Amino acid sequence: MSDYLSIHLAVRPQPGPITQGLFELKRQPIPEIRNDEVLIKQTHMSLDPAMIGWMSADRESYIPRVELGDVMRSTGIGVIVASNHPDFSPGDTVQGMLGWTEYKVSGGKGLNKVPLGSDPEMVLAVFALPGLTATQGLFGFADPKAGETIVVTGAAGSVGSLVGQLAKADGLQVIGVAGDDEKCQWITDTLGFDGAINYKNDGITSMLKDLTPEGVDIFFENTGGPIQQQVFNRMNAHGRIIVCGMISDYVSAQPSPGPNWIPLIKKRVTVRGFAMTDHLGDASKLRAKLAPYVADGKIKFRTHILEGLESAPEGLNLFFNGNNRGKLIVRL
Amino acid sequence: MSDYLSIHLAVRPQPGPITQGLFELKRQPIPEIRNDEVLIKQTHMSLDPAMIGWMSADRESYIPRVELGDVMRSTGIGVIVASNHPDFSPGDTVQGMLGWTEYKVSGGKGLNKVPLGSDPEMVLAVFALPGLTATQGLFGFADPKAGETIVVTGAAGSVGSLVGQLAKADGLQVIGVAGDDEKCQWITDTLGFDGAINYKNDGITSMLKDLTPEGVDIFFENTGGPIQQQVFNRMNAHGRIIVCGMISDYVSAQPSPGPNWIPLIKKRVTVRGFAMTDHLGDASKLRAKLAPYVADGKIKFRTHILEGLESAPEGLNLFFNGNNRGKLIVRL
Repeated sequence: MSDYLSIHLAVRPQPGPITQGLFELKRQPIPEIRNDEVLIKQTHMSLDPAMIGWMSADRESYIPRVELGDVMRSTGIGVIVASNHPDFSPGDTVQGMLGWTEYKVSGGKGLNKVPLGSDPEMVLAVFALPGLTATQGLFGFADPKAGETIVVTGAAGSVGSLVGQLAKADGLQVIGVAGDDEKCQWITDTLGFDGAINYKNDGITSMLKDLTPEGVDIFFENTGGPIQQQVFNRMNAHGRIIVCGMISDYVSAQPSPGPNWIPLIKKRVTVRGFAMTDHLGDASKLRAKLAPYVADGKIKFRTHILEGLESAPEGLNLFFNGNNRGKLIVRL
Repeated sequence: MSDYLSIHLAVRPQPGPITQGLFELKRQPIPEIRNDEVLIKQTHMSLDPAMIGWMSADRESYIPRVELGDVMRSTGIGVIVASNHPDFSPGDTVQGMLGWTEYKVSGGKGLNKVPLGSDPEMVLAVFALPGLTATQGLFGFADPKAGETIVVTGAAGSVGSLVGQLAKADGLQVIGVAGDDEKCQWITDTLGFDGAINYKNDGITSMLKDLTPEGVDIFFENTGGPIQQQVFNRMNAHGRIIVCGMISDYVSAQPSPGPNWIPLIKKRVTVRGFAMTDHLGDASKLRAKLAPYVADGKIKFRTHILEGLESAPEGLNLFFNGNNRGKLIVRL
């Protein structure tokens, strides 16, 4: 087998589901490597909601976008199968921005060796983009304090589930919002959240009130949608809102309006949008912050595995329909 | 004349104009002072947009409200007419939270002596609430940098006019938004703003685009209204939005929605609401920051004088209809 498959962005998405037609599948001979290069065979590839932004980004976007024709961007884990690079040997496991491809030639830049014996799924589910994002958003921006109340939307998602567990470990009251009862049960029974709300239920206003009797100090927003205004209404004075994702609005042709700003004054609330791309230079520091929580057994995760690179495009729709159960990983 | 007038909050306002019926006017004998007290005859009283918030504040508000029956809150300047207090002598001019009253007995707490020869109008227009608010909002939160572009709404108002001049003095490109052509002319011709937009004109989208060719780094929001979304659309990456006032929405029964939050992520924008009440402990530090700009002739102001305490209630409506020309001060 001397051919390999790669998937390239061909068309920028319109509002609505992701279709195969947005991508071009290419089969090419596995290339030779030159001096100071390695050939990586990818084994595990991460699918993240941020990809929608990387694809959709218009000319006015401020986040580096994937150019048309380029291999779709993603983080992944692979094995070095050939090396002319002094730092890597065949058999090494590495992590990096490998993209939607079965094989990748790399000069080594941005590649990190994965310690022997590491679980690749844990690396992608905890120590890659989800964990860096959760750690930066919660500890870098939200200033969590024991006894405070945090509400996390997309709470069963890859970022939200980590944010909630980190906050819980630090003594906060943690309420998660998710899109079905199974997810709600998982975040309370398995992850230890103090409460969960299925946003599709009736009566979320009173549920939210009951679950946050002392109001909300931190709102970690991963989804958007009507729950946003509800949580906003519960914010306490000096509350912090971290806007990490708005997956429910990425697919709407007409994004819904946000909350009126008067309460921001009355309650002196800060709303901070962030994108992890700005903070990748702090990855080592963020991993060092995160590692003790993992070592202490405070962090649980689950993965939702798709088989084969071809499953990636359709897999993105799981972010919109909420049918994934855990961190989305494509096994190659 | 041994009687004096004071005005008390009697009813909390509903959306719409401020009416005399919200207040109770009381005439009472001028009281005797006891040990360690002074009697102050107020000469100049400040009217500020924040008063609407102090009055309207419902039980869920987080800013100290004026209780029903209490003298309406305000800052003012007065003369000590009798003193049993070691720190104050008759004839001293003092500044403090004197309230809507002709005379006030005080134990001295929160009273500051105004240096001999100071212009009371300048004290209230620059060094009192407007100047503290502008200095805290701009330098405490907005992190202004020379060469950046700032858009200030309510730019001819007491806070906005100072924010713009401070930013201009620090080398920013300053665009002001105001509600009529005279105000626009004042902020450009007299205050030195780089551009002005009458938000009541047609075509504000293209005007704003023309005046901010490199986008907007700082949005200092004093008004709310449809211009908010327009300025929001122009924000640059890592932009900062300071929400200081929403006067146009205070009177609406149904506050208008705010911008969708997706651009906060894409552009990594922070929206920070603040209330000066949190920062009064920093007043000396803020005045010290502000003073050199005044000393260097960088700060101009104008005052709109109302005569007599009875003019205060109706005077508040000038904030809503925009018919004031400069800092509102009641001369007693």
